[in-house]
Amino acid sequence: MTKAERTRSFIIEKTASIFNTKGFAGTSLNDITAATGLTKGSIYGNFANKDEVALAVFDYNLKRATADIGRQIAAQDSAQNKLMVYVEVYTDFFDAQCENGGCPILNTAVEADDTHPELRKKAVAAIRSWKNKIISIINEGVEKKELKANIDASQIALTMIAMIEGSIMISKLLNDKSHMTAVMESMKKLIHDLS
Amino acid sequence: MTKAERTRSFIIEKTASIFNTKGFAGTSLNDITAATGLTKGSIYGNFANKDEVALAVFDYNLKRATADIGRQIAAQDSAQNKLMVYVEVYTDFFDAQCENGGCPILNTAVEADDTHPELRKKAVAAIRSWKNKIISIINEGVEKKELKANIDASQIALTMIAMIEGSIMISKLLNDKSHMTAVMESMKKLIHDLS
Repeated sequence: MTKAERTRSFIIEKTASIFNTKGFAGTSLNDITAATGLTKGSIYGNFANKDEVALAVFDYNLKRATADIGRQIAAQDSAQNKLMVYVEVYTDFFDAQCENGGCPILNTAVEADDTHPELRKKAVAAIRSWKNKIISIINEGVEKKELKANIDASQIALTMIAMIEGSIMISKLLNDKSHMTAVMESMKKLIHDLS
Repeated sequence: MTKAERTRSFIIEKTASIFNTKGFAGTSLNDITAATGLTKGSIYGNFANKDEVALAVFDYNLKRATADIGRQIAAQDSAQNKLMVYVEVYTDFFDAQCENGGCPILNTAVEADDTHPELRKKAVAAIRSWKNKIISIINEGVEKKELKANIDASQIALTMIAMIEGSIMISKLLNDKSHMTAVMESMKKLIHDLS
């Protein structure tokens, strides 16, 4: 990494939780200089504007939130066990995730859908990719006859994502992890009923 | 209504969609004066600050989003038909809701959970009241033996709210109502399986 790349990474890492907690509109240039200890000149020497920091931070937060999931899914043999990874990961990682401001897709989706087209595009791509990942697990399970033949894979994928994102919102708002656990119990049943 | 009350109502009605669309942090005093045609002095003559407008707007938006639901639930006889009202209402009202910036509880929950304690309290109260409403419908259905005896009413209530809020987020972000409809199909099955 060049010095410029290291500075960019430093700015992204130091402001990732702030953007995810305060939102794009709520994060000021002062927040960015305070978190990094850098001057405004130095921030603008590395990013054209706050937008550019926010877009890089979204990628970083998404990667941080989803990094383990791919590995854990790959380590499972059956379609149902792969889908159950989402139940376990989202129950386990809830506390760590909440400290950093919650789910970056949910936060960005709600804040950016009406106000920030470039950030919105990134959240759209993240949801589409997540949905396609679940659909491909289900389709493979159907092909291998582990799962019922008549499953609407798209409907199940969207339902799982809605349950996860909705329960993150509720649990974080009410500051009560048991609400997330309860919804994940319903998701277990949904996955169980696929076979 | 006194003249002062009429002016407050006018300010609330004119800024309700703006706060719900742009968020609390994203809505400026200039947005409020532009939407109402009133001067800053007149706004501050009726509200102590932007916070006070935002809190009044939350109540207004919540009432607007939930007004019909109570009436429609009351008109149904069985517990399952009462629960099915949520399926129908959230499928039907999606377009109107999205024009106004989406679900005010979801928007406020995501924006205010880390940043605005008074708004957060209102979103918490809205979720608790919604959850209790669903639990009481289920409990009545269990008592009348319309529903199975061993239902975890709290788990079902939280799952329904998560499905609704999660699917609003996904559909609004992807600008595709069919995603909401798909998740509501899963919710129908969940409600159907209660008997």
